[in-house]
Amino acid sequence: MLTKKVLRNVVVAAAAMVTMPAMAQQNYKTDSATIKNIYNNALTSYESYENLRYLTKNIGARLSGSPQAAAAVEWSRQVMEKMGLDRVYLQEVMVPYWVRGDKEVGRIINSKLIGSQDVNILALGGSVGTGENGLSAEVVEVKSFEELEKLGKKKVKGKIVFFNRPFDNTHVITGAAYGGAVDQRGGGPVAAAKLGAIGVVVRSMTNDIQDVPHTGGTRYEEGVEKIPAAAISTRGAEQLSKLLANDPNLKFYMRMTCETLPDVLSYNVIGEIKGTEKPDEIILVGGHLDSWDVGEGAHDDGTGCVQSIEVLRLFKDMGIKPKRTIRAVMFMNEENGLRGGRKYAEEVKAKGEKHIAAIESDAGGFTPRGFGIDGNDGQYAQVLTWKPLLAPYGLHDLTRGGGGADIGPLKGQGTVALIGFRPDSQRYFDYHHTEIDTFEQVNRREMQLGAASMASLVYLISEYGLSGNGAKAAK
Amino acid sequence: MLTKKVLRNVVVAAAAMVTMPAMAQQNYKTDSATIKNIYNNALTSYESYENLRYLTKNIGARLSGSPQAAAAVEWSRQVMEKMGLDRVYLQEVMVPYWVRGDKEVGRIINSKLIGSQDVNILALGGSVGTGENGLSAEVVEVKSFEELEKLGKKKVKGKIVFFNRPFDNTHVITGAAYGGAVDQRGGGPVAAAKLGAIGVVVRSMTNDIQDVPHTGGTRYEEGVEKIPAAAISTRGAEQLSKLLANDPNLKFYMRMTCETLPDVLSYNVIGEIKGTEKPDEIILVGGHLDSWDVGEGAHDDGTGCVQSIEVLRLFKDMGIKPKRTIRAVMFMNEENGLRGGRKYAEEVKAKGEKHIAAIESDAGGFTPRGFGIDGNDGQYAQVLTWKPLLAPYGLHDLTRGGGGADIGPLKGQGTVALIGFRPDSQRYFDYHHTEIDTFEQVNRREMQLGAASMASLVYLISEYGLSGNGAKAAK
Ligand SMILES: [Zn+2]
Ligand SMILES: [Zn+2]
Repeated sequence: MLTKKVLRNVVVAAAAMVTMPAMAQQNYKTDSATIKNIYNNALTSYESYENLRYLTKNIGARLSGSPQAAAAVEWSRQVMEKMGLDRVYLQEVMVPYWVRGDKEVGRIINSKLIGSQDVNILALGGSVGTGENGLSAEVVEVKSFEELEKLGKKKVKGKIVFFNRPFDNTHVITGAAYGGAVDQRGGGPVAAAKLGAIGVVVRSMTNDIQDVPHTGGTRYEEGVEKIPAAAISTRGAEQLSKLLANDPNLKFYMRMTCETLPDVLSYNVIGEIKGTEKPDEIILVGGHLDSWDVGEGAHDDGTGCVQSIEVLRLFKDMGIKPKRTIRAVMFMNEENGLRGGRKYAEEVKAKGEKHIAAIESDAGGFTPRGFGIDGNDGQYAQVLTWKPLLAPYGLHDLTRGGGGADIGPLKGQGTVALIGFRPDSQRYFDYHHTEIDTFEQVNRREMQLGAASMASLVYLISEYGLSGNGAKAAK
Repeated sequence: MLTKKVLRNVVVAAAAMVTMPAMAQQNYKTDSATIKNIYNNALTSYESYENLRYLTKNIGARLSGSPQAAAAVEWSRQVMEKMGLDRVYLQEVMVPYWVRGDKEVGRIINSKLIGSQDVNILALGGSVGTGENGLSAEVVEVKSFEELEKLGKKKVKGKIVFFNRPFDNTHVITGAAYGGAVDQRGGGPVAAAKLGAIGVVVRSMTNDIQDVPHTGGTRYEEGVEKIPAAAISTRGAEQLSKLLANDPNLKFYMRMTCETLPDVLSYNVIGEIKGTEKPDEIILVGGHLDSWDVGEGAHDDGTGCVQSIEVLRLFKDMGIKPKRTIRAVMFMNEENGLRGGRKYAEEVKAKGEKHIAAIESDAGGFTPRGFGIDGNDGQYAQVLTWKPLLAPYGLHDLTRGGGGADIGPLKGQGTVALIGFRPDSQRYFDYHHTEIDTFEQVNRREMQLGAASMASLVYLISEYGLSGNGAKAAK
């Protein structure tokens, strides 16, 4: 229990931390009050959380091309239509359609120690199947591509390659651990196939030791044999590795009937509030509407979508008329193609639209820590001048380097700043791309705080632009 | 999904944020490396998490005086004994022993709309029972003590008073919302009894709308009738309030067989590593070993206990010989008496021990945000000089005002700084004092990061003391 007195002290001290900013005091007061109202509104409205509930519970997993992805498009269009925005529209985009088929079978067979035992696997997104009968082969375990190269064709041909490099848990930001391991999932199948392997098993991308496998996209290369590839749970990976150490000749059986079907017509879903003074200057806020086909795509990226819609709702509900245009974009196909992000950027170019900032939320609906800013020096400095307004809400990490996958293709079109929303990262990879990425894992307040922090930054950019001209960074 | 490139950018940018501190560069380098090693060690050792698993799963709820509390004392003594510390000992303390008795019954009866329906209630800690037959009465709902006063004896006598002021969700730090509502739980029974009420029902202390009720301590006053008091779940409170609006004459039935038994001998459990240069200067790090009697006392305060033990483990495992003495204290009876904290402070006084700092972790095992410091200006300024060493780990909130319930009685003994560990607060009151405060709600890495941040601060204090003399706050 916390004592009441202690708690009051904390609040008073936190309030006292707001030091006078570099900007004019009058604006500071107005902006500070507006941001406080944004947080108050976001924390007391249940709309974004109920939107997330609908998207995850009533629609659920929504891989590009699936009927559920179509439902998500229609649902988000309807939600925004009801909000009385200035414009809601769809943007056509052809997307790949990969289907998982039957539940996968993964089995350690003929182990001297344990005989045969099933382990949890999930086909990697885009993988070819094994054929109806599955395949079995001896397993070579490697931790790196270098190790695989050293083994050479002789030791790899006809085998299943088991990529088992774990997350480096010493990274405080879990995304860094992901970045240090995910090459195995993306590049493993091609590297293994080049040496004659007939299948690939990749350790799941998570810090946790779990029974659930994590799917995610993999890549093939023109001219290299496409071999089946699956993720194995981290607990399964640990077990397989131990058994292999004692019994290098055990075999692994895998059966997957996944396949890639013809492309399907889908859509980016867009809603906007026109700016009153500079309607041609667009501030984008977005997430991706598609998810993997397991779980409910709650943190990845249901929260990013409902937070983006919430930004518009906050402006409407509070009666803030933004000086610049605010556009919420639900991108399609981030997970296995990025077709929505590419199409959006093409259209921007074709129409000669001017985006001054694009903010993506695609790192989970956790407590906000800040934003990563990929812009020029002036733009970064301008964002830093807002630190006194943002830090009281825990937004301390205003760092260079940011963006997001879907907004990435906008890079270089004018001086658009690409901004990544950065929530706390500790739990993201416990759920990422799994059957346990569900509504229940999202804390209402953490998600609401994320929406409020995005809305606050959007508000400041809508008031002042983001040219970066003449901005001096606050210390 | 996050792209690898985006993630790398984040890491590089975060690393670049570490600006040169005010202190000498050589110390900065050494200290920075030591702190990095502390984090690396904490994030890759499973010992603290396995300790938490044992305490919550094998011992479980452990209210003062219960056999489980005795088990927790013996277990934590054994854990520290095995660590090869310089000293492990128990400190006797007599504690109150309140028992819940039968599972409570709470029932809305004779509602015109729904007839009778059970709702979830939990007796407040320390409450008297209702007698075997329970009691039923009409209900008066109030949101404040002022409202209750206005009703007066005439309208309150013979009734059950229903305190239904909810958390103010606009507070970003949830502890502030708790602080704004918890007077109802602590002071409700006395205020109601003074006006002749025969029972009290209090809305549970949480931001969430849930079915689980939250227990917690209440108080009686000498000379005022002790009336039974229970917490009702927030969902139950919302329902009861709606029904009352339509039907002010409905009745509420409650049955509780809780009672207070004679005091029991229990213990604070203490382990220490002697300082090499100034062994008489003690740095305390602690949590409370007791919990409420529902759930598993995981976030409240199992994590504080295992984090405190982890601080000692880190020093031992890394071979850091602290200049000053580090003492981990598992306090007994924080929840319903604070006898352990008081006894500890008495002993310090009697022995003339010199504590230079006391750090308590009792706000949950969530991602660290910083520390609250209750010390003199110089001490606070000295802690601020360490900000460049701590901020890279997300410890931005180094604010005035801190401490904790158990270390509170040390206040004023010499110049001891009382420091409260401040983790992210969003989820704490989802679980606090309920059956769902379980091991499963604690994320391993979040809890480990908390232990590492406490160990880092302890390390700096052990190196430099905390006299605050000559310290200048870093900007
Ligand atoms: Zn506690
Ligand atoms: Zn995503």
